[in-house]
Amino acid sequence: MLVVGERINTSRPGVEPAVRERNKKFIIDEVVRQASAGAGMIDVNAGTLQDDEAEALNWLVQVAQGAMDLPLCIDSPDPDALMKALRVHNGKALINSITGEDARFGEIFPLIVEYRAAVVALAMDDSGIPADSAGRLRVAGRLVERLTAGGMSPGDIYVDTLVQPVSTDTNHGAAVLETIAGIKKNYTGVKTICGLSNVSYGLPSRRLLNRTFLAMCVAAGLDAVICDPLDRELMQTVYAADAIAGRDEFCIAYITAFREARL
Amino acid sequence: MLVVGERINTSRPGVEPAVRERNKKFIIDEVVRQASAGAGMIDVNAGTLQDDEAEALNWLVQVAQGAMDLPLCIDSPDPDALMKALRVHNGKALINSITGEDARFGEIFPLIVEYRAAVVALAMDDSGIPADSAGRLRVAGRLVERLTAGGMSPGDIYVDTLVQPVSTDTNHGAAVLETIAGIKKNYTGVKTICGLSNVSYGLPSRRLLNRTFLAMCVAAGLDAVICDPLDRELMQTVYAADAIAGRDEFCIAYITAFREARL
Repeated sequence: MLVVGERINTSRPGVEPAVRERNKKFIIDEVVRQASAGAGMIDVNAGTLQDDEAEALNWLVQVAQGAMDLPLCIDSPDPDALMKALRVHNGKALINSITGEDARFGEIFPLIVEYRAAVVALAMDDSGIPADSAGRLRVAGRLVERLTAGGMSPGDIYVDTLVQPVSTDTNHGAAVLETIAGIKKNYTGVKTICGLSNVSYGLPSRRLLNRTFLAMCVAAGLDAVICDPLDRELMQTVYAADAIAGRDEFCIAYITAFREARL
Repeated sequence: MLVVGERINTSRPGVEPAVRERNKKFIIDEVVRQASAGAGMIDVNAGTLQDDEAEALNWLVQVAQGAMDLPLCIDSPDPDALMKALRVHNGKALINSITGEDARFGEIFPLIVEYRAAVVALAMDDSGIPADSAGRLRVAGRLVERLTAGGMSPGDIYVDTLVQPVSTDTNHGAAVLETIAGIKKNYTGVKTICGLSNVSYGLPSRRLLNRTFLAMCVAAGLDAVICDPLDRELMQTVYAADAIAGRDEFCIAYITAFREARL
């Protein structure tokens, strides 16, 4: 399971002032803490800064990769901000995100090609987000086909099935599980990714729901998760779910996490 | 999710002396505590008592059902002990278990018919336990067909896919998940059941692995689990997994568990 650390996001408490002040120590600490807790990739998002977003994202990429040699997930709807960040990124970046919307596709796809990036592909198009898993599979499938027809390797595509709260519709959780399983079955090599916290919106004990949902997504075949790796119980679930799903040969990662007192 | 409480088993510490002494209070307490924690059925097993097993099981059924009006899972390999217990059981019992082994099938099936019982059907036959999920599906499928051909309703059959440790083979967990999904897909109405603790045998932090495995089994379609409902974190996982899988309309059971301070 690839864990993408979500903490460097200016919408989170304390992050916006740190980025505005170009506080390197704050960012380096967040990178090191997330990587030490098990993140294999770090998301950077400066979306709340508006006029300063592109410059801030460029700075974040340099500081974050200066701290540790990890790939980043560059998280912005703005093609100009993405481009300025991609220019200074070392290795294969993950662009977050493209959709099947024609305008968005036309803006983002050239960046993927130019910078040989991987991409988060949201299961939505100009008609919006399909309500059921069949609709999402159809929309995600069309998007995967456009991306691979354009030359992308299936392994560089991370389909995001767009998690919605079970509090607003009892079927929202099962729809995600079915969509993940469907993508893995229908599109060999294509990866799946999701965030967790939307599933528990409006309900109590959200961290319990989020980590239980993660285990269930792993059972369905999820490859990557965008989450807070400093949530200790969540990371325990990652290690346990990988061991059970047969992704952790001889349970070495699980046993190592135990020896390091992380379980 | 049907939770079958596993605590009244003479192989567990303290239970054998209580059953030998016919300590009603001990058994009633165990029934009430398990039911209060969310068990919908109580397993009774007196297997370590040997000569006294049949009489003890008969006594256990009467005491347990005297305490609360719950169906029991009657757990014995001995047809005579099963019969003596079934005679005094009120309502539909769950016999634990039948297999595809010819001798065992011949002994147990008449009891199912006579007492209109449900049954745990183990995915094994005279050739043993198949190593992979395809083999288990084949063996379980043949057993389901024999049971339904004999007149059983599919909903009274609980296929147990036989959980083995991931510490001895990295693929053991995935094999269970695939078998559960295969049974649910191929045999409409047939239920699935499993125990949890075997999966974590030989590894540290076993309760973490067990509850993570449970969430993953729910994602695959598991209907019932034999476990210790006094494991608070395990039951939290049951409520969360049911809510996410779309089995808890309006998340009412989840919210109720929260209000009762069980989450």
